[in-house]
Parts: sequence; structure tokens; C-alpha cells
Amino acid sequence: MPSSSSSPAAAAADRGVYNFAAGPATLPLSVLQRAQAELVDYRGSGMSIMEMSHRGKEFDAAIKKAEADLRALLAVPDTHEVLFLQGGATSQFAAAPLNLCASLSDPADFVVSGSWSDKAFKEAKKFSAASVAWSGKDGKYTSLPPFDAIEQNPEARFLHICSNETIHGVEFKDYPEPKNKSGILVADMSSNFCSKPVDVSRFGLIYAGAQKNVGPSGVTIAIVRKDLVGGAQPITPVMLDYKTHADNASLYNTPPCFAIYICGLVFEDLLAQGGLAEVEKKNAHKAGILYDAIDASGGYYICPVEKSVRSLMNVPFTLAKGGDFEKQFIAEAAKEGMVQLKGHRSVGGVRASIYNAMPLAGVEKLVAFMKDFQARNP
Amino acid sequence: MPSSSSSPAAAAADRGVYNFAAGPATLPLSVLQRAQAELVDYRGSGMSIMEMSHRGKEFDAAIKKAEADLRALLAVPDTHEVLFLQGGATSQFAAAPLNLCASLSDPADFVVSGSWSDKAFKEAKKFSAASVAWSGKDGKYTSLPPFDAIEQNPEARFLHICSNETIHGVEFKDYPEPKNKSGILVADMSSNFCSKPVDVSRFGLIYAGAQKNVGPSGVTIAIVRKDLVGGAQPITPVMLDYKTHADNASLYNTPPCFAIYICGLVFEDLLAQGGLAEVEKKNAHKAGILYDAIDASGGYYICPVEKSVRSLMNVPFTLAKGGDFEKQFIAEAAKEGMVQLKGHRSVGGVRASIYNAMPLAGVEKLVAFMKDFQARNP
Repeated sequence: MPSSSSSPAAAAADRGVYNFAAGPATLPLSVLQRAQAELVDYRGSGMSIMEMSHRGKEFDAAIKKAEADLRALLAVPDTHEVLFLQGGATSQFAAAPLNLCASLSDPADFVVSGSWSDKAFKEAKKFSAASVAWSGKDGKYTSLPPFDAIEQNPEARFLHICSNETIHGVEFKDYPEPKNKSGILVADMSSNFCSKPVDVSRFGLIYAGAQKNVGPSGVTIAIVRKDLVGGAQPITPVMLDYKTHADNASLYNTPPCFAIYICGLVFEDLLAQGGLAEVEKKNAHKAGILYDAIDASGGYYICPVEKSVRSLMNVPFTLAKGGDFEKQFIAEAAKEGMVQLKGHRSVGGVRASIYNAMPLAGVEKLVAFMKDFQARNP
Repeated sequence: MPSSSSSPAAAAADRGVYNFAAGPATLPLSVLQRAQAELVDYRGSGMSIMEMSHRGKEFDAAIKKAEADLRALLAVPDTHEVLFLQGGATSQFAAAPLNLCASLSDPADFVVSGSWSDKAFKEAKKFSAASVAWSGKDGKYTSLPPFDAIEQNPEARFLHICSNETIHGVEFKDYPEPKNKSGILVADMSSNFCSKPVDVSRFGLIYAGAQKNVGPSGVTIAIVRKDLVGGAQPITPVMLDYKTHADNASLYNTPPCFAIYICGLVFEDLLAQGGLAEVEKKNAHKAGILYDAIDASGGYYICPVEKSVRSLMNVPFTLAKGGDFEKQFIAEAAKEGMVQLKGHRSVGGVRASIYNAMPLAGVEKLVAFMKDFQARNP
């Protein structure tokens, strides 16, 4: 795909870096340039988009177009609300049980496949009788369960998964069927949201912080089945009640206008690329050459994740030669313009986050550097 | 103050409008221009501030400087934490009782002086035994109580006020002493935050959405006394627990980085203006000429708010000739580049919001237009 990758590649080169941050993460340069051009005077209004009433005609058009474009990208059915919220996925860890469980004693099942689903589980315990249906902790979060190994409680109100673990680099390639009476599947999709098509109809609730694939930090998107809205527990803060936002088209109080506007520009860009099926192809290609390079290194680079569930978004790896060489690797890569490659502080090592906006040329440059580093430090 | 007001005045004229929005509201043009200049490549990093790890050195410096500058502006004592949060003041309506009350049956007192304090009271009823210590509803929220008319419950955990009612235009010029055993005063300062000096030591908790005087929407600032952190009710979502954010320097999860960065630029600008005492002088001058014009109109323009508590930030007024003339007034003002003057949908009329970043020339232009409009439509 030379034509589609050459332009962002050249653009990234203009800025001198490829940015492998896990989030907030690299954004399409064309989006940043457009935001820059209209930052002081939004489309002839004489105002910045940051200075406008969220109930005025300019922002109203911006948020409606953002929602419509997201609905088009993910083919969101009319059965589901699209909400623009605040507080990150961490707020949704509370909102999910508060909205979906009838009381603090209502059970809910969690697949704990890494740090993020573990956090979701722990927060849910405050607002439901949450329990672990499967845990990857003993395997250091390098695998996912066969679906029949998930011990689902038929009385559970929902089954919760994290579709992609940003820190550990494990990603669901398909989704388990909820076997609970309610038939509700819930997914934290923060770090692979809009990286590929998803059958939204299979989910009761999808939520995602924007700051990986679709925008800056500060806005969280929730896609919730309409029949699940309106039954929140009485102790639900009004801002965590989906009904508040569904009834007010995400304008109950002042939303994070600038972040929503940037998401809208990204959605436009993703549609212009041909939609999420095309985006997935590019992501699979980028991840493929990086994992191939790791696996072809003769054990010099090690990705601990089972091949069948390796993330297309976050590629964690270590160097067999140890931590000092990892530090050297990260420092030398930074000197060559490949930045933010340090693994999460909880696991160490190296992590290359290669979200939608990472150009193919960035991954190619990283792979070339890995080979060179290995040759120089055998 | 010709030198300090002429520059933003000229700048606003460059964009063709004076923006009287109640929030999100006008920002200093110099701040917008600086954000524009470094939007794509933040200070030579090769990345936008929107694309960086919130734990990286660039953002770390930005948030620390923002906090330090805010502490300098308000002379925040070491006894108080400064937190950068999400979810607007509306989230704080829940957070205040969840953090400060020991249980759902713990009493709390509310001065209900307009729509916003009424919302705070209603949300607090979920998480405390909140009651109304004084209400301005019968007077259509045009006045504030003499302090001895506030019926404080000695058992109340805190006394809550809204320091400036954005919709009704009433503003506390001094603050009541809490007569509860805990001695805790809480203020929603969203719409006059950083418009004047405040003795922070008198408050247990101050919170404010940024989108009036200090930044874009999407970030909420809380200033909380350290000894009040750590006692949240067990049903408090982790994101609403002040301890979460105090223990992690506002970086427990990904914060709204871009919004915090813009606030930091605004704080720099306010310090460069000479600090909040200087800012208050400018605000008093601007509001003074606008209220004088209303009061000198012979009843043509009517501000319903008692003179002693009129807001320096939000100036609501009506036209004695009625709603059709108000519509005409707003439409003609917009044609002359004075925009977003429509009163809140709940009260109608006209509202001129004249926050810190509104230049004196904008108010002078509005006053001249008011006189002209009256002359043409006697």
C-alpha cells in the first residue's frame, strides 16, 4: 500500500519522529494540521471551537457529524446509543455495573486477561457481586482462554472482557458468547477501538477512551444498547448514568468539546481511508512485519504472548540479553527518531504501540533498527 | 488600562467578533495563537502535546507548571491539594458528599441561589442527607441571603455555596462562615474561578469547570484541604475519590492533557497580567460600565439582580419592550460582531458573559450598541 502509507510516512519524517506511545498516541498528521489551521478561527466563525457554546450551531454540527461518522465506521445499529463521555475507561469500570446491575449483590462475570480487565473487575466489586470467570494471571497475562474455559455464572448480569490489553499485548480475535440469562457482553475496547470492524450488535456495552486510535485524551465513547439504558442503581452519580447522556445527546453538561471535535476529524480520516476493513488490513500488515522480525531474531527479541492472541496494536517484547540492553535499545532508537518505546512501568521491556495512525514506514524503520541493533550487539 | 486592554481588543477585532458566550467562553488570543503555533510539533519534540504519554517529561513539566502557576495565582496554601479532574462541576456535585460525608445519612447544608446550586443540592441528596439552608427560588434567584439568614445545621458536614450563578448572575462578594461542627465550607466556583483573589484557606473544597475563565471544557479543577482526603464513602467510584488523584498527582489514569495544557497557558497569561488583584480590577471596570449602562437606560434595559450581589462575570438583562425586541437586539448585535448574547434557555432574555478574556473594548462596543439600539427603538 505505498500510496496510502507514503504520505503519512513523509509527514512523520517532517516532524523527525515516529511516536510509538501507548496512549495518548500518534494522531494523523493531516488531522493535526487541520486542527492547527482552524484553531484560532473555526471555519470563519471568528472563534475557536474551544470558545463556543456547546449548544451553538457550530459545535452542534461537529458532534452530530462525529456521531454519524462513527456510526458509519462501525455500522452501529439503531438499537444502540453512541455517547461521548468523560473520565476515561476507568469511569466506565464503575458505570458498567452501576447501569447494568440492579443492586450491589447482582453478579457479574469478568475475564481477567491483564492489568486493565483486572482494574475493571476490582472497581466492579464495589457496585456488583463481580467474580472472575477466567484469569490469565498465573500465565503472566500472555494468553486468552478457550471460550469454553470461561466459567460463566448463568445468573451473572453481564460478561466483561477487555478486547485488547494495552500493557500485555493480548487481543481477542473473536468474542465469547455470554451464557448469562441477560445475554449481555460488555467490552472495554479502549486500545483497539476503530482499529478493525466489530459486530456491535453482539455487545450490550462497548466503551473506549479515545486516546489510542481516535483522538486525544479527555473523551470516552460508550456504545450501549438502548434497552439497557434507564435502570441504573439509585447510588449512580448522574454523570455515570447512561440515561443522563442518552436523553441529552451527550450534552447534559458541557462536554469535552475540543476532544470530540478532534475525534470527528479522525473519523473523517478513517472513512476517507476506506473504512475499518481497510484500516484493519494496514494494521495487520504493520503488526505482521514486526512480529515476524521478533520471531526471526533467533530468540534475540522475545514476545511472550501466544501467537494466536497477539495484539495488532501493542507489541511488547524483551531482549534476551537483559534490561541494560533494553535501555540501550530504547535510547538508541530515540536518537534515531523512534520514541516512546519503553514498556509499561509495571512490566518493563520494550513496547511498540502501532495504532491506526502509525505509518507503515515507522514500523519498517523500527524493524530495520532491530536488525541493526542485533548485528551490532550480538 | 489602555495598554493591557488594547492588545486583546485589537486581536478580537482581527477575528471579527466579541464572544459573550457563558462557557465554553472566549480565551486570550495570545493563548490560542501559541497553542496553534505548537499544535503539530510541541516545542521541538516532533509530537503534538495531544500525542504524548502523560507520564513523559514534556507533559510532566506542563502539568507541574500549571499547578505551580495556579498555586501562585490563588496563593493556595500547602494545606490544600490541587487536582485536575474530568466530568465537569456536575461530577463534583456527587464527589463533594461522597468524599466529605461519612454516610448517606450524614447531613449537609446548601445555599440554593440559582440553577447550579440547585443541581448540586439535588445530586447531593443521593449521597448525603442534604438540605436547603436558604433558597432564592421565591425571589427568582435575584438575591443572596444575609449570612445570618442561612439556617445552618450544626450537625451538617459542610455548607455548600455556588460562588457565582452563571445563569442568574448573582455572585457572593464575601463568603459565609460555616457554623457546622466540621467547619467546612464548599464552593462551586466554576464561573468566577480565577476572576479575583480568594482566601483559599477558608474553604474545605473549591471546584470549578475550566471553561469560563481558565481554559477549554473537559477539565475540572478541585482544590481540597488535605485532611479531608481519604475518607470517601465505600460506594465512591475510584475516579470520584479525591484520594485517587491526590495520591497520583492527577495522573491515576490518563488526564485530559490538552485541556490542562491550555489552562497552563492561561495561568501564565494571568500571572503576566499582574495576578488576580489586577484581573479583578479589570473585571470590576468592565462590569461597572455595563451595569451603569443598564441602570442609566431609564428602564429600557432591566437587570433583575440586586445591586449588591450582581455578578462581575455574567450580566443578565431583559428589554422592557419584550421578547421580540430581545430577539432583534441579539440578532443585530451578532451582525455587528457581538455574538452568543442569548440568555440561558431556562430564563430567556439577554446575557453578556464578560469573563477575564473579554477585552474592555468588547464591553465598550456592547454599551455603545445598547445606546444606539435604544435610540433607534424608543
